[in-house]
Amino acid sequence: VSRLAARVERMRPSRLRELVAASTSGPVLSLGGGLPPPEALPTEALAEAADRVLARPDRLALQYPPTEGDPGLIEAIARDLRTRLGLDAPADRLVVTTGSQQAFDLIAKVTLDPGDAVVVECPTYVGALRALAVYQPAFVNVPVDAGGMDTARLEHLLSGGLRPKLCYVVPNFSNPSGATMTAERRRHLADLAMRYGFLVVEDDPYGQLRFAGADIAPVAAHAPEVAYVGSFSKVVAPGLRVGYVLAPDALRRPVVLAKQAADLASSSFNQGLVAELLAREGWLDGHVEGLRRLYCERADALAGAVARRLPGRLWFDPPEGGMFAWGSLGDGVPAADLAVAAAARGVAVVPGEEFVAGGEPVPAVRLSFSMLGPADIDRAVERIALAFEDLNQGPG
Amino acid sequence: VSRLAARVERMRPSRLRELVAASTSGPVLSLGGGLPPPEALPTEALAEAADRVLARPDRLALQYPPTEGDPGLIEAIARDLRTRLGLDAPADRLVVTTGSQQAFDLIAKVTLDPGDAVVVECPTYVGALRALAVYQPAFVNVPVDAGGMDTARLEHLLSGGLRPKLCYVVPNFSNPSGATMTAERRRHLADLAMRYGFLVVEDDPYGQLRFAGADIAPVAAHAPEVAYVGSFSKVVAPGLRVGYVLAPDALRRPVVLAKQAADLASSSFNQGLVAELLAREGWLDGHVEGLRRLYCERADALAGAVARRLPGRLWFDPPEGGMFAWGSLGDGVPAADLAVAAAARGVAVVPGEEFVAGGEPVPAVRLSFSMLGPADIDRAVERIALAFEDLNQGPG
Repeated sequence: VSRLAARVERMRPSRLRELVAASTSGPVLSLGGGLPPPEALPTEALAEAADRVLARPDRLALQYPPTEGDPGLIEAIARDLRTRLGLDAPADRLVVTTGSQQAFDLIAKVTLDPGDAVVVECPTYVGALRALAVYQPAFVNVPVDAGGMDTARLEHLLSGGLRPKLCYVVPNFSNPSGATMTAERRRHLADLAMRYGFLVVEDDPYGQLRFAGADIAPVAAHAPEVAYVGSFSKVVAPGLRVGYVLAPDALRRPVVLAKQAADLASSSFNQGLVAELLAREGWLDGHVEGLRRLYCERADALAGAVARRLPGRLWFDPPEGGMFAWGSLGDGVPAADLAVAAAARGVAVVPGEEFVAGGEPVPAVRLSFSMLGPADIDRAVERIALAFEDLNQGPG
Repeated sequence: VSRLAARVERMRPSRLRELVAASTSGPVLSLGGGLPPPEALPTEALAEAADRVLARPDRLALQYPPTEGDPGLIEAIARDLRTRLGLDAPADRLVVTTGSQQAFDLIAKVTLDPGDAVVVECPTYVGALRALAVYQPAFVNVPVDAGGMDTARLEHLLSGGLRPKLCYVVPNFSNPSGATMTAERRRHLADLAMRYGFLVVEDDPYGQLRFAGADIAPVAAHAPEVAYVGSFSKVVAPGLRVGYVLAPDALRRPVVLAKQAADLASSSFNQGLVAELLAREGWLDGHVEGLRRLYCERADALAGAVARRLPGRLWFDPPEGGMFAWGSLGDGVPAADLAVAAAARGVAVVPGEEFVAGGEPVPAVRLSFSMLGPADIDRAVERIALAFEDLNQGPG
């Protein structure tokens, strides 16, 4: 077993998660996973797209595509990034990846040596932590508040001598915090990246799912040394595993070569399906509009139920989009204990420490509102209130 | 740029390949790539499968599947490996991968440290070389003849002190050599692996494409420390990117954890499509039978044309299956020069050095007979004969 394998082994699913799973009895109301609900998955549009893609006489959608991706899809993504986000997005800076997860892996593989400092939000997305941790960096946590990563704190660390190789952020409706980074902080982060010479990895799977407030330009709009990572998992379907990275020139070539070694190319069929959907005038806009309404209703239901049933015990800053709320806990209730108690009451939530590089406990749980309708969300919160009661009674 | 990136950079597409591409003028008859031809790709069966998979009310084919793979597909693969190959293939030793390429990457990632000895055939599959080289092993070449890897030579090296971490082989109709490892050598290799404690990575993408001779049990039938790697790229379609590995117990868990970090999971949709095809009574057998007839006819056409048009200049041991013939060259003609001259005549072949760890020239070219019908194969060989003439005339 290699040293890399030993590092991978340390990233195993946490004992805490196993403990929570073991506590579960009976059917579960899930505020746990960050998945689109079945009704958000466009099966009919995909069935039509599959028929069209498979009817093409060249059958290229079943062959090996270029490692960097299907040219038609790359053009469509470039156009979308230019028109929707105002990014300078030439096709030759894009690489299609097997989900955004592969983008994190490849970027880490070609930029990190063991011991390199990597700045992450605290809390941050656990999948990215897993991908980065394989290459054994020294993680540096920077706290997140309602305005996203505290870039003043980051500047303080940098002026104190911190020299990171890269900084990973989820500026829109972050997983897990639900927070959105302010425009000022995005510009500030871009300035810091240029001044101190580190790569920003800007992960934006939820940006299109805004249901309140106004769009904010991405960090990538303010600096060249940003790898902007996108995904169709949340706006089309996770099961297609189609993501992409808009990479700085110098990063793009090593990423393509590393991808060639890692899986040759992502599925040309699935790339063809996404390209077909993007080519249908207005389809994606209409579909995303439906998703926004769905998640807005659910976010409201969660906020209402929590205010009604858990006053003073659990609260969150209302997210402006996405799928997640970061439920802060009062009364010194350990998040892990609450997650175990909630599981015993048939509700899944994820304790905050799962999202912290280093795994230190934090007084919060992640609540995902994507999977349940409003009535089930209310029922789930009712059960969480019972879980609080259980905890106050002690272990019995 | 990390040290891994520097290694990746060294794996860039070879200058030779670029030179060959640059020589090409006009439409090309390709004996170059190892692809199924368009007519071998089952578009109608896949369109039906897509309709059925997308009509399922659970819509699980569009969600994240377990990292190890879609349970239905894993069961189908396990059944196939047991009935077709007699392998002990419990479902919990299988991992579905994003093409077999990802299996090579993940196995290398969790087993190799820089400097570890890795035994490969000479010549061997260039994609596997790329995947392995990222982790910076010391490659040890063992020659291949008509009976596959020369295991007596391997034993000699082992008894001389060689202690490899793994040995990569393509026992059936190898890419690029077309050679099939004899039953005796497979048993011998399994014995050596047990005696000297190394992992055998047995890559078998072509095993079902046998059109002459009798099936031979895989190396994995003779030893537990074999990672048997399979793929649906050649029997269904490359564009789905669905492969798998049947891994020894101790290897399976690190591979799953490494895969979770690398791309979370392979496409559930594509896994569902393959599972649907495998569930159709007799479909795969019928489809593969058609592929065998197709490739047999083309292999015969190539053998005939070469015997007729290139006597004494190029010859090969007739492959018993697969897509490749290894064209040995006489008269001291450098393979690279022949490839460049053939490209100028509008025929793609790949010079042997592309398939050698270390890149030393070898007096052979790989001829892939999968893409062209018999008449075009004859035309291509006719042009190769002209390329030989061009070479004899010198550069002019």
